[in-house]
Amino acid sequence: MTLMDNIGSLAKRRGFIYPGSEIYGGIAGFWDYGPLGVELKNNIKRAWWQTMVYEREDVVGLDAAIVMNPEVWEASGHMSSFTDPLVECKACHKRFRSDKPELLAAHEKEHKEKVEWTESKIFNLLTEVLLGVTEPKMTAYLRGEITQGVFVNFRNVVDSTRVKVPFGVAQIGKAFRNEITPGNLTFRSREFEQMELEYFVRPDEKNASEVFEYWKQARMAWYLTLGMHKTKLRFREHRPEERAHYAKKAWDIEYEAPFGWSEFEGIHHRGDWDLSRHKLVYTDPETNEGYTPWVIETSGGVDRATLFFLIDAYVQEEKRIVLKLHSRLAPVKAAVFPLVSNKPDIVKKAREVYTLLKKHFVVAWDDRGNIGKRYLSQDEIGTPWCLTIDYDTLGSDTVTVRDRDTMSQTRINISQLQTYIQEKLGGTI
Amino acid sequence: MTLMDNIGSLAKRRGFIYPGSEIYGGIAGFWDYGPLGVELKNNIKRAWWQTMVYEREDVVGLDAAIVMNPEVWEASGHMSSFTDPLVECKACHKRFRSDKPELLAAHEKEHKEKVEWTESKIFNLLTEVLLGVTEPKMTAYLRGEITQGVFVNFRNVVDSTRVKVPFGVAQIGKAFRNEITPGNLTFRSREFEQMELEYFVRPDEKNASEVFEYWKQARMAWYLTLGMHKTKLRFREHRPEERAHYAKKAWDIEYEAPFGWSEFEGIHHRGDWDLSRHKLVYTDPETNEGYTPWVIETSGGVDRATLFFLIDAYVQEEKRIVLKLHSRLAPVKAAVFPLVSNKPDIVKKAREVYTLLKKHFVVAWDDRGNIGKRYLSQDEIGTPWCLTIDYDTLGSDTVTVRDRDTMSQTRINISQLQTYIQEKLGGTI
Repeated sequence: MTLMDNIGSLAKRRGFIYPGSEIYGGIAGFWDYGPLGVELKNNIKRAWWQTMVYEREDVVGLDAAIVMNPEVWEASGHMSSFTDPLVECKACHKRFRSDKPELLAAHEKEHKEKVEWTESKIFNLLTEVLLGVTEPKMTAYLRGEITQGVFVNFRNVVDSTRVKVPFGVAQIGKAFRNEITPGNLTFRSREFEQMELEYFVRPDEKNASEVFEYWKQARMAWYLTLGMHKTKLRFREHRPEERAHYAKKAWDIEYEAPFGWSEFEGIHHRGDWDLSRHKLVYTDPETNEGYTPWVIETSGGVDRATLFFLIDAYVQEEKRIVLKLHSRLAPVKAAVFPLVSNKPDIVKKAREVYTLLKKHFVVAWDDRGNIGKRYLSQDEIGTPWCLTIDYDTLGSDTVTVRDRDTMSQTRINISQLQTYIQEKLGGTI
Repeated sequence: MTLMDNIGSLAKRRGFIYPGSEIYGGIAGFWDYGPLGVELKNNIKRAWWQTMVYEREDVVGLDAAIVMNPEVWEASGHMSSFTDPLVECKACHKRFRSDKPELLAAHEKEHKEKVEWTESKIFNLLTEVLLGVTEPKMTAYLRGEITQGVFVNFRNVVDSTRVKVPFGVAQIGKAFRNEITPGNLTFRSREFEQMELEYFVRPDEKNASEVFEYWKQARMAWYLTLGMHKTKLRFREHRPEERAHYAKKAWDIEYEAPFGWSEFEGIHHRGDWDLSRHKLVYTDPETNEGYTPWVIETSGGVDRATLFFLIDAYVQEEKRIVLKLHSRLAPVKAAVFPLVSNKPDIVKKAREVYTLLKKHFVVAWDDRGNIGKRYLSQDEIGTPWCLTIDYDTLGSDTVTVRDRDTMSQTRINISQLQTYIQEKLGGTI
């Protein structure tokens, strides 16, 4: 079993991630999040929104529709440029990206002979959707990036709020790409969620460069604050030929996944590409000067972040598997155990603790088997604190709090538990 | 201006809801949420998740993909039964639902003469999407209801968690319908978000009826707890001929919108329809008895709830428009005003209050114009509390807290503000 196999297996076994439509043989590039996965993913989105919107005064949120008027994609350049070049193996008719020589080589190796390829053809990644009730239906597209929803609403946002350049618009939402080779669990999916900031600045190269650098560092810091290993993260600048059609400059934050260094957030200098394509201008409310702002974008993948937080937290120790997730991201914050399940006094006290904490945190209850096994079960899903109610609790009103990472135990008074956990989590909205 | 015009205008002017792709002439049935709209919608979703998942022990969450293997829709009966009957006006080629005589009558009235209709034809509401990189592409569907994602994962959820019948799976996510007549703002959209519970019970009519009644009352209570007017809400049972193909019994929670009593949540007895179509059974872990559970479903629209909370909260008073949103739903919890903006002491103190509260709540800052206008601006977006820092604050460390609904003012010590607001909001995860 490779590390990815182990993580995929844990993800399915404990209810983080299931293959989409599995009972019908699946559907390539689509995944479902189980009970723990939805909590982990929501915690990541909430932490991002907290940092990018609630803690700032220069960023507002937005949530645009997945389907837009097709003219948006004409204007944005996606109809002509959001493409992969593909070649087809003449023998087996499989298609591959011709700009990925390693894929072609792998296929040639598999065939063990010279492969004849068709000429490279351009393939658009936008997913077509058919709308309306008359034939022929109208062809529209599932958005290939959530970004355009911000640009087409630029004027609405400026008119309905008090933002002034420089300001940002943050958005989280689903996008779709007709990826030819989905794979590595949720890493490359056809349906995925993005969390993006479009930050509008004056069209000034020096200023734009500073803002670009600011966001590069800020986004890296966010992953570090949430506990990712620094050695597993790096920046990588895009070479001119790999930059997207809208990008004047592009850097990736990469994570060293088991399948290699992999992009999971991009910081892009989009210049005035989008706003000028949509014929949008901005009028400075103080000087009345009109101009087209430039855009610095931070574009992260929610599914990729979820996967990489899982990978980064996964530790196989001698006697246990433990997900060392940051407590803010952990799906379950605390588990409450009555030491034994056949002593009504202990069970009753444990229920009191459980009920008390459940008002404030996601809390699990487990009264099955020995305490050691219960610890292992919680370790595997990343629960930071296990609270055991034992005979001493009945006299002292204290419980044993066992720390997931250090496995050390300490006794805390029941009346202090909420504060104890709250402080460790840090305050969030 | 009708009430709906007023609400649509406020929604756009203050950044709740914008027409989708507006700068390209829009796209019928698709809407974007602005900075305040995304907060309101997220607060509704969070309150729902809190009630339906976090406060319960018998419900777990899920988040399935929008695109599923097409066989799911064959099995679920949506390919054959998720349909509207349509007729076309022979003169203008517009299409209408032939089961809605009021629409046909309205069109005949508009034409001022006898309209000739084509024969009624069955039209499927599933939105087609084309996947893959080879021609012809594979036809899949955007889910017409989020429900099926729960059913196809039934076994995964049972295997990866500790749920035992009776238990529920809660989910929030987008669905799409090729509605022929989108309209009434976001009420009937082609892209919309649902919040649903599928609650699995033993196949026993008496038990199922009790659970059905329990959820009917629980869902109504949820809207009332969040401040909706009781007189604007009612139950309505579906007539046998209007029930969906999967429903043994169906009741709607209706809201009296300006456009009439309108469904915004359905409680459905789906029997064993879905699980048996997907050939899924359940084995009782204690008795080893195998059976197909029945399903009681609560299916609410997030966009409809958002719209109806807006409508229900909208009050046009003599001197102001005020959104009397429940404080938990209000996009902004508090606004901080320095009485004057040209006294550095007051501004500095106000910034301290703002910074203090911003760690815990969504807080606005406003230092422009007279206090009365600032109140009006916050009333219109539903901010429950406005805090004014004035000359007295400098000596007493108290601020004026003005209540949105009563417009009464009280002085609160700065050190008490967080607790004051927290207690009024009630504890939530």
